[in-house]
Amino acid sequence: MLSSLFTIASLATAIAAASNYISGPPPVSYGLLLFPTFEQLDVNGPLEALYLLSLQFPMNLAIIAETLDPVSSKPLPVNNTFNSNVSQSVVPTNSFADVPPIEVLLIPGGFGAEVPEASETTIAFIRDIFPSLKYLITVCTGAGLAARAGVLDGRNATTNKAEWAKTIALGPKTNWIPHARWVVDGNVWTTSGVSAGTDGVLAFIEEQYGAEAATRVANTMEWVRITNSSDDPFAGLYGL
Amino acid sequence: MLSSLFTIASLATAIAAASNYISGPPPVSYGLLLFPTFEQLDVNGPLEALYLLSLQFPMNLAIIAETLDPVSSKPLPVNNTFNSNVSQSVVPTNSFADVPPIEVLLIPGGFGAEVPEASETTIAFIRDIFPSLKYLITVCTGAGLAARAGVLDGRNATTNKAEWAKTIALGPKTNWIPHARWVVDGNVWTTSGVSAGTDGVLAFIEEQYGAEAATRVANTMEWVRITNSSDDPFAGLYGL
Repeated sequence: MLSSLFTIASLATAIAAASNYISGPPPVSYGLLLFPTFEQLDVNGPLEALYLLSLQFPMNLAIIAETLDPVSSKPLPVNNTFNSNVSQSVVPTNSFADVPPIEVLLIPGGFGAEVPEASETTIAFIRDIFPSLKYLITVCTGAGLAARAGVLDGRNATTNKAEWAKTIALGPKTNWIPHARWVVDGNVWTTSGVSAGTDGVLAFIEEQYGAEAATRVANTMEWVRITNSSDDPFAGLYGL
Repeated sequence: MLSSLFTIASLATAIAAASNYISGPPPVSYGLLLFPTFEQLDVNGPLEALYLLSLQFPMNLAIIAETLDPVSSKPLPVNNTFNSNVSQSVVPTNSFADVPPIEVLLIPGGFGAEVPEASETTIAFIRDIFPSLKYLITVCTGAGLAARAGVLDGRNATTNKAEWAKTIALGPKTNWIPHARWVVDGNVWTTSGVSAGTDGVLAFIEEQYGAEAATRVANTMEWVRITNSSDDPFAGLYGL
């Protein structure tokens, strides 16, 4: 009897583990949302992982912004005490008016995502595209944009730990989880700040394309992975 | 007597530790060398750290390429079995013909740095600018470009572990160190592959701007640092 129960439990676990693989082929079409004053590593940790993966699987990426003008990561004047300029401009491939079919949308964070003035057009883009997505992944304070678009309502989610209070205030209907490198709720993945996006995307790769593919990508990146989503070295540091 | 020797030894250690600070103010002007098929995280891990640092210290960055045309990270056909396109184009701020004064030059790697066809103009640029630099930092296979420019001759250096044999062949007069997250030789810093660039630049920040600044940057990035340059989790993995 006990043995039968174990067998049933093991079977249920195996089915749950395999469900991500039997739900269809892994994604091919990715989109990256860009906006002024995006955080450079929020974008490029995940993009590095997806680029290396794209040498193992057919994949493409659309870089989507409000217009086709280059989008700058230049700091906001309010944060830029020394009038520094360590930034770059990235060229979008698609404007909001011309978005190809996308299975996975990646939303980075950064000071540009956090300001109340963050473009309503960007929020509306997220709200409109969300129902057509297979997966949404937010990095860092990108969760604040998703929250403002309403797509995190009723979900578990996490975000940047240094900007915690400010960001969670944007999602009063979200169950924010402070001790998490990343959080998965249905088809929505949210990660903690900056570097956490890379661990989250590597976990996403592992779920969708298999452990071998994820390990190969991480080793090529010489990335020391955090593989447990609740292993968060920074929540405590920021008093959460 | 023994006590005096200890005092002298401690004093020598303290002077050595402080020497980086008393050699002048920390750098303000950075340059990033870009070329087609650069590795995205080689560039953007270091740039993220420098961007966050630039909110604590006055700093600026020139993004330098052969021309002012956007530079793409699109994979080389030879590596792109599935005809994928997960890449981006970054807009240079300066061409080789118009480079502002730079104290620190950052050279990323990537397949574009490894091919024999890598532009002779790029190699010549490195050779020409090197004597005017305060520091050179290479990430990943960017060390191969520096080696081809001759600036690693007679120096200790390291590079990407997955591309080790191919890259060290470009620098026969260099003492290549396989077990290293990064290597410092005089004013030349070389790092291992991709993510190692960020640990190397954080160590550079610690040396130049102090431990507090480096820790603040790493914590804001939610980056789990490797702080010991000889702690290399990947050399063994690649049989080195």
